Amino acid sequence: MAQQIQIDQPRLTSELATLATFTDAEPVSNGTSVTRIVFSPDDLRARAWLKELATADGFEVRDDAVGNIFIRWTGTDPDAPAVATGSHTDAIPHAGMYDGTVGVLGGLEAMRTLKRSGLQPRRSIELVMFTSEEPTRFGIGCLGSRLMSGTLDPKQADALREANEPADTAKTLAQVRTAAGFTGDLASVKLSPNHYHAWLELHIEQGPLLEREGTPLGIVTSIAAPAGYRFTISGLGGHAGALLMPDRKDALCAAAELILAIEKHALATHVIDTVATVGTCDVHPGAVNSVPSRVVLQLDIRDTDPTRRESVMQAIRRDIETLRQRRGVIITEQIINADAPAQSSPHLVELLEEVCATHGISPRKMVSRAYHDSLFMARIAPIAMIFIPCRNGVSHRPDEYATPAHTTLGVQVLASALAKLASE
Amino acid sequence: MAQQIQIDQPRLTSELATLATFTDAEPVSNGTSVTRIVFSPDDLRARAWLKELATADGFEVRDDAVGNIFIRWTGTDPDAPAVATGSHTDAIPHAGMYDGTVGVLGGLEAMRTLKRSGLQPRRSIELVMFTSEEPTRFGIGCLGSRLMSGTLDPKQADALREANEPADTAKTLAQVRTAAGFTGDLASVKLSPNHYHAWLELHIEQGPLLEREGTPLGIVTSIAAPAGYRFTISGLGGHAGALLMPDRKDALCAAAELILAIEKHALATHVIDTVATVGTCDVHPGAVNSVPSRVVLQLDIRDTDPTRRESVMQAIRRDIETLRQRRGVIITEQIINADAPAQSSPHLVELLEEVCATHGISPRKMVSRAYHDSLFMARIAPIAMIFIPCRNGVSHRPDEYATPAHTTLGVQVLASALAKLASE
Repeated sequence: MAQQIQIDQPRLTSELATLATFTDAEPVSNGTSVTRIVFSPDDLRARAWLKELATADGFEVRDDAVGNIFIRWTGTDPDAPAVATGSHTDAIPHAGMYDGTVGVLGGLEAMRTLKRSGLQPRRSIELVMFTSEEPTRFGIGCLGSRLMSGTLDPKQADALREANEPADTAKTLAQVRTAAGFTGDLASVKLSPNHYHAWLELHIEQGPLLEREGTPLGIVTSIAAPAGYRFTISGLGGHAGALLMPDRKDALCAAAELILAIEKHALATHVIDTVATVGTCDVHPGAVNSVPSRVVLQLDIRDTDPTRRESVMQAIRRDIETLRQRRGVIITEQIINADAPAQSSPHLVELLEEVCATHGISPRKMVSRAYHDSLFMARIAPIAMIFIPCRNGVSHRPDEYATPAHTTLGVQVLASALAKLASE
Repeated sequence: MAQQIQIDQPRLTSELATLATFTDAEPVSNGTSVTRIVFSPDDLRARAWLKELATADGFEVRDDAVGNIFIRWTGTDPDAPAVATGSHTDAIPHAGMYDGTVGVLGGLEAMRTLKRSGLQPRRSIELVMFTSEEPTRFGIGCLGSRLMSGTLDPKQADALREANEPADTAKTLAQVRTAAGFTGDLASVKLSPNHYHAWLELHIEQGPLLEREGTPLGIVTSIAAPAGYRFTISGLGGHAGALLMPDRKDALCAAAELILAIEKHALATHVIDTVATVGTCDVHPGAVNSVPSRVVLQLDIRDTDPTRRESVMQAIRRDIETLRQRRGVIITEQIINADAPAQSSPHLVELLEEVCATHGISPRKMVSRAYHDSLFMARIAPIAMIFIPCRNGVSHRPDEYATPAHTTLGVQVLASALAKLASE
């Protein structure tokens, strides 16, 4: 099999570059900056372009009610559960051009290359492009795969509001998806547990380990447990000149203490697997001459051990209690998500190792600290992930980079594995 | 004179309420929330409405190149330097309906009431509505009066950029004012030092002193010295799951320490007149799952004593140096403005005291901790300010409130003083 697979590397490289031109914000100087927020005009243009590519190669294309895209190559046994792969094309503000996109365009190239090789798969092979893997717009990541796996209630999903808009103008997911043309019932997005025979996702590592070791490929055996929280700190607003210092209950000063408490407790585990990040800080009213009356912080905390993650949260909550009393502010905590870790299917890990062996590669078995749609696909299908190195372990930045050679190798392994799985 | 002045209190109250309906953002639940950012569609509608009111009463109306509005009642000696009053109608996000507006609509009512009384002023009486007293959009307050007084270089002013937009999409003042229809050379905005015979501004106190004492009116003898700084903290961005804690140079954690250092040093003077506020905190890239790579903070620091204000800044800078070294971040400081305090004209203060006496009022002479366009008008004209109480000393909030009785009294004193000055 390995010998027959011919990846069109120039075409894949060019398609990755084209996809990067669909960006909501202009590129910045230090790289190809990509911003593609779900259902923005550029996200919708990127989706239309992807569907055109798929149609041109004779694959069937459909969307579901939340905008997940399914690109299907029907097998000789169309009723057998399909083999599936995929990832996402949305991007956080000022991010790079490889996160997610390698799994989507690489998945498409894997299907094309198998078709060119003359394969007639028994099981259908399906590529999925998930809606809103990134939590930027609605504050929660993996929207599409959460709904697909039945992890998120469809009504709650439709009621999600834009996280970075003022409360009085933030639109709901229902409003935004309707405006984007996705009008069906969200309950219809859920797939049955035996819908897919297997799920594979190709992705850049987003960490430094493969590059440091000089290993060209990783096989993910488990995905770390992520959690998201929103803290709202309410104090006392007023005029920056007239509200005297001793009378203040400044919400931003209280938020600053909370940010530092979070950092302190995440470091205090002394375990490399604990990471905690406050990525947004929205200040109300947000004027230079007005004392902040309300601040909203979003916390992303992850650990391979959910118990340790929870113990860090408990330490943070004790500091919040002190902060409340000392500063006279109100602090509320809202849980956005607290997900369990996922394990890869031993069968799929073994199959990927066999495929790697035919390519003469010794892959590294590893944990994914970043989370992915595969975390949720694991609830309805056997999963595994293929990682390729990225330069300096950098991701979510304009200088994110994966070499064409590594990308091509990842697609080769993916294509071989899909072909094997389609014949099972 | 005092006996002849009949303020149309119902009309003034109604006009204040109408002006509050021109708001960029919807009102919030705890009061009449007003947001009127300079040159927003609602700001432009408010300006058009004000001009209609002035024209209906037979006053002449003109704009200058930065959009300052001049409403003129020509006197019997049109070449004599005019007597002027005014304030602003722009409002920070989610503010109240009295800050600035009382001086504009109250000034208009003062002119109307004098006209109704049959007065034929020798000097012309002019009402000014200043552009962008609030620093929200361009990061610097009192744009209109800075240009009018020659305090701000016209070229530098035109190059100012929107403070709350990403660097790559922020428009310049030149672009924004041109789009709003103000196309002249900003150098033409400057007035000569003898252009006005006298300048008076009626304003709510924005502090608690008048209300606490039960004094219905204050005469401002000096305006505190304000300064504005912008701090840019640059660290290392990355994926919130994959960038490990020991490798981080989190710009938001560094910013949190800076926010707390600023608070600490402002409190450490143990003087009520020192106030320091970080009112905005813009996080880049601003995604829940991305480590902040850059944070921009805006600091507003004021003191009645500019030397003490500078010593607080020096203490903050020493902490920044430590912070830089300990966290490996880059912190740059940009001065937005550092203005000297202004003194009222002893003659105008005396004249206002006389007018108060004819109304049977004992005014409080006081310092303005908030700054106003009068701070800059003091550089080209003798100035004084009239303060009226505001409930709980609250300003820049939806629950900002001044009673109709206090507003009316302020307009009566203003009208009497304008009449006296017009005959000087």
